[in-house]
Amino acid sequence: MKVLFLNGPNLNLLGTREPEVYGRQTLADIEREVRARALARGIEVDFRQSNHEGELVDWIQQARGSADVLVLNAAAYTHTSVALRDAIVAAAVPAIEIHLSNIHAREEFRHRSLVAPVCRGVICGFGAGSYLLALEAAGMVSA
Amino acid sequence: MKVLFLNGPNLNLLGTREPEVYGRQTLADIEREVRARALARGIEVDFRQSNHEGELVDWIQQARGSADVLVLNAAAYTHTSVALRDAIVAAAVPAIEIHLSNIHAREEFRHRSLVAPVCRGVICGFGAGSYLLALEAAGMVSA
Amino acid sequence: MKVLFLNGPNLNLLGTREPEVYGRQTLADIEREVRARALARGIEVDFRQSNHEGELVDWIQQARGSADVLVLNAAAYTHTSVALRDAIVAAAVPAIEIHLSNIHAREEFRHRSLVAPVCRGVICGFGAGSYLLALEAAGMVSA
Amino acid sequence: MKVLFLNGPNLNLLGTREPEVYGRQTLADIEREVRARALARGIEVDFRQSNHEGELVDWIQQARGSADVLVLNAAAYTHTSVALRDAIVAAAVPAIEIHLSNIHAREEFRHRSLVAPVCRGVICGFGAGSYLLALEAAGMVSA
Amino acid sequence: MKVLFLNGPNLNLLGTREPEVYGRQTLADIEREVRARALARGIEVDFRQSNHEGELVDWIQQARGSADVLVLNAAAYTHTSVALRDAIVAAAVPAIEIHLSNIHAREEFRHRSLVAPVCRGVICGFGAGSYLLALEAAGMVSA
Amino acid sequence: MKVLFLNGPNLNLLGTREPEVYGRQTLADIEREVRARALARGIEVDFRQSNHEGELVDWIQQARGSADVLVLNAAAYTHTSVALRDAIVAAAVPAIEIHLSNIHAREEFRHRSLVAPVCRGVICGFGAGSYLLALEAAGMVSA
Amino acid sequence: MKVLFLNGPNLNLLGTREPEVYGRQTLADIEREVRARALARGIEVDFRQSNHEGELVDWIQQARGSADVLVLNAAAYTHTSVALRDAIVAAAVPAIEIHLSNIHAREEFRHRSLVAPVCRGVICGFGAGSYLLALEAAGMVSA
Amino acid sequence: MKVLFLNGPNLNLLGTREPEVYGRQTLADIEREVRARALARGIEVDFRQSNHEGELVDWIQQARGSADVLVLNAAAYTHTSVALRDAIVAAAVPAIEIHLSNIHAREEFRHRSLVAPVCRGVICGFGAGSYLLALEAAGMVSA
Amino acid sequence: MKVLFLNGPNLNLLGTREPEVYGRQTLADIEREVRARALARGIEVDFRQSNHEGELVDWIQQARGSADVLVLNAAAYTHTSVALRDAIVAAAVPAIEIHLSNIHAREEFRHRSLVAPVCRGVICGFGAGSYLLALEAAGMVSA
Amino acid sequence: MKVLFLNGPNLNLLGTREPEVYGRQTLADIEREVRARALARGIEVDFRQSNHEGELVDWIQQARGSADVLVLNAAAYTHTSVALRDAIVAAAVPAIEIHLSNIHAREEFRHRSLVAPVCRGVICGFGAGSYLLALEAAGMVSA
Amino acid sequence: MKVLFLNGPNLNLLGTREPEVYGRQTLADIEREVRARALARGIEVDFRQSNHEGELVDWIQQARGSADVLVLNAAAYTHTSVALRDAIVAAAVPAIEIHLSNIHAREEFRHRSLVAPVCRGVICGFGAGSYLLALEAAGMVSA
Amino acid sequence: MKVLFLNGPNLNLLGTREPEVYGRQTLADIEREVRARALARGIEVDFRQSNHEGELVDWIQQARGSADVLVLNAAAYTHTSVALRDAIVAAAVPAIEIHLSNIHAREEFRHRSLVAPVCRGVICGFGAGSYLLALEAAGMVSA
Repeated sequence: MKVLFLNGPNLNLLGTREPEVYGRQTLADIEREVRARALARGIEVDFRQSNHEGELVDWIQQARGSADVLVLNAAAYTHTSVALRDAIVAAAVPAIEIHLSNIHAREEFRHRSLVAPVCRGVICGFGAGSYLLALEAAGMVSA
Repeated sequence: MKVLFLNGPNLNLLGTREPEVYGRQTLADIEREVRARALARGIEVDFRQSNHEGELVDWIQQARGSADVLVLNAAAYTHTSVALRDAIVAAAVPAIEIHLSNIHAREEFRHRSLVAPVCRGVICGFGAGSYLLALEAAGMVSA
Repeated sequence: MKVLFLNGPNLNLLGTREPEVYGRQTLADIEREVRARALARGIEVDFRQSNHEGELVDWIQQARGSADVLVLNAAAYTHTSVALRDAIVAAAVPAIEIHLSNIHAREEFRHRSLVAPVCRGVICGFGAGSYLLALEAAGMVSA
Repeated sequence: MKVLFLNGPNLNLLGTREPEVYGRQTLADIEREVRARALARGIEVDFRQSNHEGELVDWIQQARGSADVLVLNAAAYTHTSVALRDAIVAAAVPAIEIHLSNIHAREEFRHRSLVAPVCRGVICGFGAGSYLLALEAAGMVSA
Repeated sequence: MKVLFLNGPNLNLLGTREPEVYGRQTLADIEREVRARALARGIEVDFRQSNHEGELVDWIQQARGSADVLVLNAAAYTHTSVALRDAIVAAAVPAIEIHLSNIHAREEFRHRSLVAPVCRGVICGFGAGSYLLALEAAGMVSA
Repeated sequence: MKVLFLNGPNLNLLGTREPEVYGRQTLADIEREVRARALARGIEVDFRQSNHEGELVDWIQQARGSADVLVLNAAAYTHTSVALRDAIVAAAVPAIEIHLSNIHAREEFRHRSLVAPVCRGVICGFGAGSYLLALEAAGMVSA
Repeated sequence: MKVLFLNGPNLNLLGTREPEVYGRQTLADIEREVRARALARGIEVDFRQSNHEGELVDWIQQARGSADVLVLNAAAYTHTSVALRDAIVAAAVPAIEIHLSNIHAREEFRHRSLVAPVCRGVICGFGAGSYLLALEAAGMVSA
Repeated sequence: MKVLFLNGPNLNLLGTREPEVYGRQTLADIEREVRARALARGIEVDFRQSNHEGELVDWIQQARGSADVLVLNAAAYTHTSVALRDAIVAAAVPAIEIHLSNIHAREEFRHRSLVAPVCRGVICGFGAGSYLLALEAAGMVSA
Repeated sequence: MKVLFLNGPNLNLLGTREPEVYGRQTLADIEREVRARALARGIEVDFRQSNHEGELVDWIQQARGSADVLVLNAAAYTHTSVALRDAIVAAAVPAIEIHLSNIHAREEFRHRSLVAPVCRGVICGFGAGSYLLALEAAGMVSA
Repeated sequence: MKVLFLNGPNLNLLGTREPEVYGRQTLADIEREVRARALARGIEVDFRQSNHEGELVDWIQQARGSADVLVLNAAAYTHTSVALRDAIVAAAVPAIEIHLSNIHAREEFRHRSLVAPVCRGVICGFGAGSYLLALEAAGMVSA
Repeated sequence: MKVLFLNGPNLNLLGTREPEVYGRQTLADIEREVRARALARGIEVDFRQSNHEGELVDWIQQARGSADVLVLNAAAYTHTSVALRDAIVAAAVPAIEIHLSNIHAREEFRHRSLVAPVCRGVICGFGAGSYLLALEAAGMVSA
Repeated sequence: MKVLFLNGPNLNLLGTREPEVYGRQTLADIEREVRARALARGIEVDFRQSNHEGELVDWIQQARGSADVLVLNAAAYTHTSVALRDAIVAAAVPAIEIHLSNIHAREEFRHRSLVAPVCRGVICGFGAGSYLLALEAAGMVSA
């Protein structure tokens, strides 16, 4: 099984950005943790980050045929991007939406996700743990 | 570690009720799976269901001092109950909201959760898998 | 044919409560009228009332396999209960929503019914007559 | 007792139009059924259909003094016509709103009825049965 | 100067319909009063009523070139008709909106007028007096 | 008969302020016209202007017992003042709301009047003519 | 192929009505252009106009079995008529919605079309060109 | 005079639950204070708490004939329960709504009370003092 | 302890204004009652009324340093004045909002209070009793 | 005449993506059809696709001076991009908005277009035909 | 050049009122700073404060002909006063809206300014600096 | 002190694009003016423009540690980008939002800024002057 983890805007600053909300781990730390656990379970992992909505769309499209499950932390684009939503449907790969923080405990405009309705499931609020849980969940949603 | 799983209204009909939405497993099947995995990890599990909002409030209150983590599938009450929300805050036990289905892919009124803002995290859309993931997540949110 | 009539909160006070809105008949009077007409048509009737949302959910669930048609006057819970709605779907028994008064001629918040979309039909505004009409209608919706 | 049945736009196509929503009976079929039952009960029936809002207003006005009860299936005008509403009030004849389908189970804009608040009661969702039930109900609302 | 008075749906029942809201004068009474005062001032009056939106549109169109001022009591269509609005603009005759009752003291949905924005002015709440005031006002808005 | 004309904020600048909306007449010009016509009809006129909401409230209160009809051009306060509304009710003198311009043809926030529901009638859009029409209307609303 | 062109309220005034919005061509000019091009392509054309919503409903119903494609410029009724929407569905003839002007560049209330969701496609903003484009499009949507 | 104090969900945890919002007094402490003051004034007090909406409805109904005044701290149910509202009307006993905290200074959804419109008065924000003030107020609202 | 009672617009007409809503007592009557009870408890009272929002702001500001508690019946300004709200915060004196009537049982726009969120508590619906209860409550909120 | 066709996000997957909504033609198929017809009419065509909002903005800007008409299928960005809207205005080239599907028959959030108000016209619902119709329409909107 | 600085309600308490939001400078301190810089640039300054909306309206009107630029910190009236808005338009003097705090980072109801649309520009969030920046900006907006 | 000026989509067309809204100066003209004044004050300036949201996010992130103040004219992205908002918070550099035009005097959707709540202050409406004022303001917000 191959899982593609895509990370949206500003996640590259993780660990420095609002640590009281997102914790002190960097995205590299999380990637390392994810890879370690994936290795133990024989899962192949691709792990990327971009601040560009268009680049995230490109990558989701490429998942088609090259990945079994897409794990998407779309960050800010979660709440504003119809393009990501359409890309997930077009790619026809089962997707899991994740967030480090519990978006429902934050500003009103973060409560609505445009991509959630086209994902299989959503996991949020467990910090880096959201990524590890998604790895577990990947096995549940792949065909 | 002790985890209290609370199941809200109509989950007792699981397996018979709308199988195209919720799958064919009964709640007893899920409980069995949860207990099996919990046993393997040395976690104590309490697993209950009620159709009564007030009884769920009673049980959440009892979690205080007797459980380390509360896992709540509030079902229909997710969208209408301020009482459950207040009970979670009052109990002061870390809580995880779960759902069998992806509530964001269903009717508009199921997109809003009144309890999510006072939980640590949310997991939805993985069927019985949501329960197993919550068991994993419990270790991440307990103090 | 067996028809289960369920009555929601405060209907036990019928005849004393706001007679200018609901008339002077008691719920027992209505039950008597319903039973008389049902007897004449060879219909078996079960007739209950509860102020407890959870108990109403329990009873709706029990309709599964034991009743052919459910007639529900959910009263106040009509406008606030997703749990009753889910119970009707789960019970998979054809349901008819009834009201004594014309809810569309009352306060704005009484115009929206959460259970109507999952019922076969709705009858309101005919006082005790709504119950008798529902008895007629039961024959139209039973399989 | 004389009952005036008025049918709004597109009901003349009944039986051909969206049979999965409205059934295969034509409006003439329904009229025949209504007249048969009315005859048996000594009720006089007037039964008309128009696609013109203004003509329906004219007919409702004429009910004043010539009919004891008005049964109105306003179809599409249910949701857009203040003129029909005002006509019902002006005619001062007790009115019953009916629909073939359960309008609460259809598109959002069909949930709101502009005429319901000035009718005595509402019956919907029983197909041709809604007409027969209205005939029963007519005896309950006539002075 | 020639003034065209157009009256919308249900105004033909004036005097019988809801007298506590609209008074006991019939539309013929009002027409007589209007004609009397118009005669005294050398104003020619055309006075019509229809329950049909389309007929009112036809008449407004005919005002073009044949009347100097249009006085419109659109009644129920005030709140729902874009067609009347467009007709007024198309006719390019100065128009005055009038109402017998004070629409702002009635139901919420009567507070919004779709035709007011394309009229020169609005007069409401003075019963038959609204018609007489409009006759005065006609001289103020004609070119 | 005595009529109190009250003018709200910025009407003292009339004639200089936005002449394309309000015309070139000053408030003094209008007062002169109103007094001339009132004199001819044996009506006593009191005519005042204030930029202060509180002063307008004071004056409306004084109308009680000293004026037969209140004509109010509340200008900007029309859309924001509950205090003026309450004062009109408290004064228990029949009131007429007037405006120089057609407020329904201007910005959205000018379409709603907080005082209209407690006035007998409304006249707007006839420039200074609105004042003269109100003088006519005063005779229709005084007891 | 036979195409039925239906034109709604006030389009009979085309060429005189608001020429800065709709251009100087009359409806007869447009009909002539449409017929010329239809002739060249061997398409039969029926071309009608009415200010009456009910008459438009009648005509749409008649399209059933007598026309291959319906081209509808519903004008003002676009935004208010559920009856036209239901008629299109009932007629079961592929329909194309057209407008002379770009309705999205006009008042807010013209942005919403009640008939668009039941049409195959929409063309607006090209003046008489919208009719010619619809003629082209007719060949694309006929079975 | 007999006063029935009813306390809604989670108030049994008072003193332990969010003390920064509700203070450190337990519900038993408050009951003791209320009873002391009531004794001094010759008022009989009944004081109950339940987490169950249905039980609160039952108790409100019982107030009829057995209590002169109802003092209700409905807690979370304040914002979601039409059933409590209907029970108060049905019981026909003057009711006073109270809250420990100032609900208007908390989350938006706590600003709306469904029971307030059918109570005589509301007191909130004075902690245990709200109960003592309600005892004073009881004398003002009893018949 | 010194308590400043401020009364907003139109309260000077109390006793004459809408007695069915506000009772027949004049504001002077209420002041007398308040002073009598205050005297008995050794509380100093300042009691004022103004129809001017700005004057009420001035007085609230003066409370700073000269009063221990502010009791504010802002009347109509309750629903429209951000200035009063800011003044209460600026004055940094504990404030209590009161109303004679139960504002939640009146028009929709009276349900929202702009000043409530910055007050310690709210008391409404007890007529003159609201003032006496506020006097009791003053002792509970003063530092 | 030179026409620039711009295609937004996910249109590069056409033919594979949701064929039941968008059909089986690829974007290359459509480009070929467009070029064939353009050649026949002596129109020069530039045809591009990008998943990047910024790149689409760049290309629209370049249309200024280099293209006579812009045909834009903005796909998902139709509903979220103010930047595209501003680019169209800045480029000052007549623009036509097109869509393969009828966006008004899809999810609610696809009904609103941010770019439509600044385009000359809109064509949607004809599949690849929308492109061919736009080519026809280009001649109608170019200066 | 002459610049009129107007300060709205509660700004006279500056330095004492919520210093964490507005800083510790008094309004006199700010006036001193403004005058110092104005003197250096040869600008004449008029600097006033009032808690009365009507007085602010009076002063804005007086700006006409006596000042070249109006700088307005309307404080609470920013969000509620149409009268100030109309006064600015009537005065026909270029106006600049300023605020000490960043109103967009505060409560929702402070985000909307009724006066901003009729000002030339807005400056907020720089404390006393907003006044000094407005002095710079004055030279940019004066004719 | 180093100030980073970032310019969003379509600002590169300045001087050619809608000059009646934005003036005739090009962005290069503005940069030249800014640099001249910055030089005079010993401020280092970095000045960039991009049509790409992702590139703007990249640049804001780079401000961290390399700039003392960020001045952002996000243009169209002001109203749609949560990503820019999050980037500003993540960069932890004091930011100032600027606009050439007064966005509150333009279309409704331009009144809401998603980035304003996380900036120190906002300046809009002064054309190129907004940039010069921001340069002044930079000294006020840098630590």
